[in-house]
Amino acid sequence: MYLYQNEFLPKEQVRISPEDRGYYFGDGVYEVFRVYNGRIFEAEGHYRRLEKSARDTRIALPYPIPQLNERLVELIRLNELDEGIVYMQMTRGEAPRSHPFPQAEPVLMAYCSPLARPLQTMEKGIRAITMDDIRWLRCDLKTLNLLPNVMAKQHAIDQGADDVILHRSGVVTECSASNFMIVKDGVVRTHPANHLILHGITRDVVIRLAGQLSIALQEEPFTLEDLHTADEAFLTSTTQEVMPVISVNGEPVSSGQPGPVTRKLQQAFQQLIS
Amino acid sequence: MYLYQNEFLPKEQVRISPEDRGYYFGDGVYEVFRVYNGRIFEAEGHYRRLEKSARDTRIALPYPIPQLNERLVELIRLNELDEGIVYMQMTRGEAPRSHPFPQAEPVLMAYCSPLARPLQTMEKGIRAITMDDIRWLRCDLKTLNLLPNVMAKQHAIDQGADDVILHRSGVVTECSASNFMIVKDGVVRTHPANHLILHGITRDVVIRLAGQLSIALQEEPFTLEDLHTADEAFLTSTTQEVMPVISVNGEPVSSGQPGPVTRKLQQAFQQLIS
Repeated sequence: MYLYQNEFLPKEQVRISPEDRGYYFGDGVYEVFRVYNGRIFEAEGHYRRLEKSARDTRIALPYPIPQLNERLVELIRLNELDEGIVYMQMTRGEAPRSHPFPQAEPVLMAYCSPLARPLQTMEKGIRAITMDDIRWLRCDLKTLNLLPNVMAKQHAIDQGADDVILHRSGVVTECSASNFMIVKDGVVRTHPANHLILHGITRDVVIRLAGQLSIALQEEPFTLEDLHTADEAFLTSTTQEVMPVISVNGEPVSSGQPGPVTRKLQQAFQQLIS
Repeated sequence: MYLYQNEFLPKEQVRISPEDRGYYFGDGVYEVFRVYNGRIFEAEGHYRRLEKSARDTRIALPYPIPQLNERLVELIRLNELDEGIVYMQMTRGEAPRSHPFPQAEPVLMAYCSPLARPLQTMEKGIRAITMDDIRWLRCDLKTLNLLPNVMAKQHAIDQGADDVILHRSGVVTECSASNFMIVKDGVVRTHPANHLILHGITRDVVIRLAGQLSIALQEEPFTLEDLHTADEAFLTSTTQEVMPVISVNGEPVSSGQPGPVTRKLQQAFQQLIS
């Protein structure tokens, strides 16, 4: 069952107009919410980010956040979703193709999918390769313009890796659909939340947890050289949680095993959601 | 009448799946063809560019170019189009949302629109403002990730201008949906056709015409300072042809009138299409 505008419909009945600006311009914004035990995790953070994406792209929310939340909760109930994700997107609406903003109503669509936590992968970690970050300079906006991310992810897979670590002239930004952190001498380092990275909700959660655990954390740019000498590395995302990165470009990160700081953060995250 | 996959259908019957990757990732490529006197103008250049966009994004063409051309010609005939455009796009296909390339068939859609040549506007010229170019670094690919272009165009309109002139740290690239050229001391200058600009078909035509007219033309980067002291400026695009830019940021370009080199190129273009 999908939410489409104000209606709950079977997927087959949700049909998009070829004049939807989401279809020909990628002119829209989105969120992916995590559902644990039938409830949206960190809902407030996601809604705040959605409001920012909508404001900065100047797409009007079709209804206020509390009403949107009611509908997403109803969507979860209708789909009897216990553990999974809610995907929602909102485009600038339908209009004949022309670049300037049209007089149009936004088109909202949302659906649920069951999704198990990646417990086994979190146990053993993933392999990454580095790659130039060639995306635009508003990566803080969660928009439907995701072709560079898609191509980066596929590049990783083609190279036998799980994901890419993107960098701009040697400064590490994030991964194809997640934030990235390293640990060196007990200090966690991650790119500051500016226009070059997505302001991840799980990134925020990890920063909070690090504070609670008295783990030092610096939101400062770091380089490929810092990554090369890191003791630990991990990525954070709504679906991947705290995911160890155990090799980069075929070279093990430190011992090639998930490190102690990563494990502490995973455990704290586990406690938070249970 | 639309072309949708292999069928000709009324617009109302063309309905897109919410799982089309064009809808949630902007994962597709497109072309806009100009039709004069019922025929596609510079078809070969457009098809060559489409093949490049498809190759570099690794989206398979659903059928070979000669067959695509046959269908677009049939689309023009069915719509009795004399002067206008053919828009066609091709997405990576339908699949549950996940970044890696799926096993899926591309989804092709095309339609026609009547569109008159902008004769009056070409006579008097347009006003532009300058703006930072924050797009990704593969602007040579004609993809559906057009949100930065859309936002740039709207910014121009909000400022009372017609378009933006984009620049990277002072080096002029192009406009929101067209290439840009200046004239100084009789020499036309335009950004080289690398990954920072779209390789415009009309840009190519103008380069060819300049050669025939013995007008010197340099494909070399130039700066905002060069623009500030230019004798003439114009943009080139499939729908705007050779369009004089008569003011930049409220300051007239030279006399504030379309210049003689621009006029010569407009006349040569007019001859070419008639």
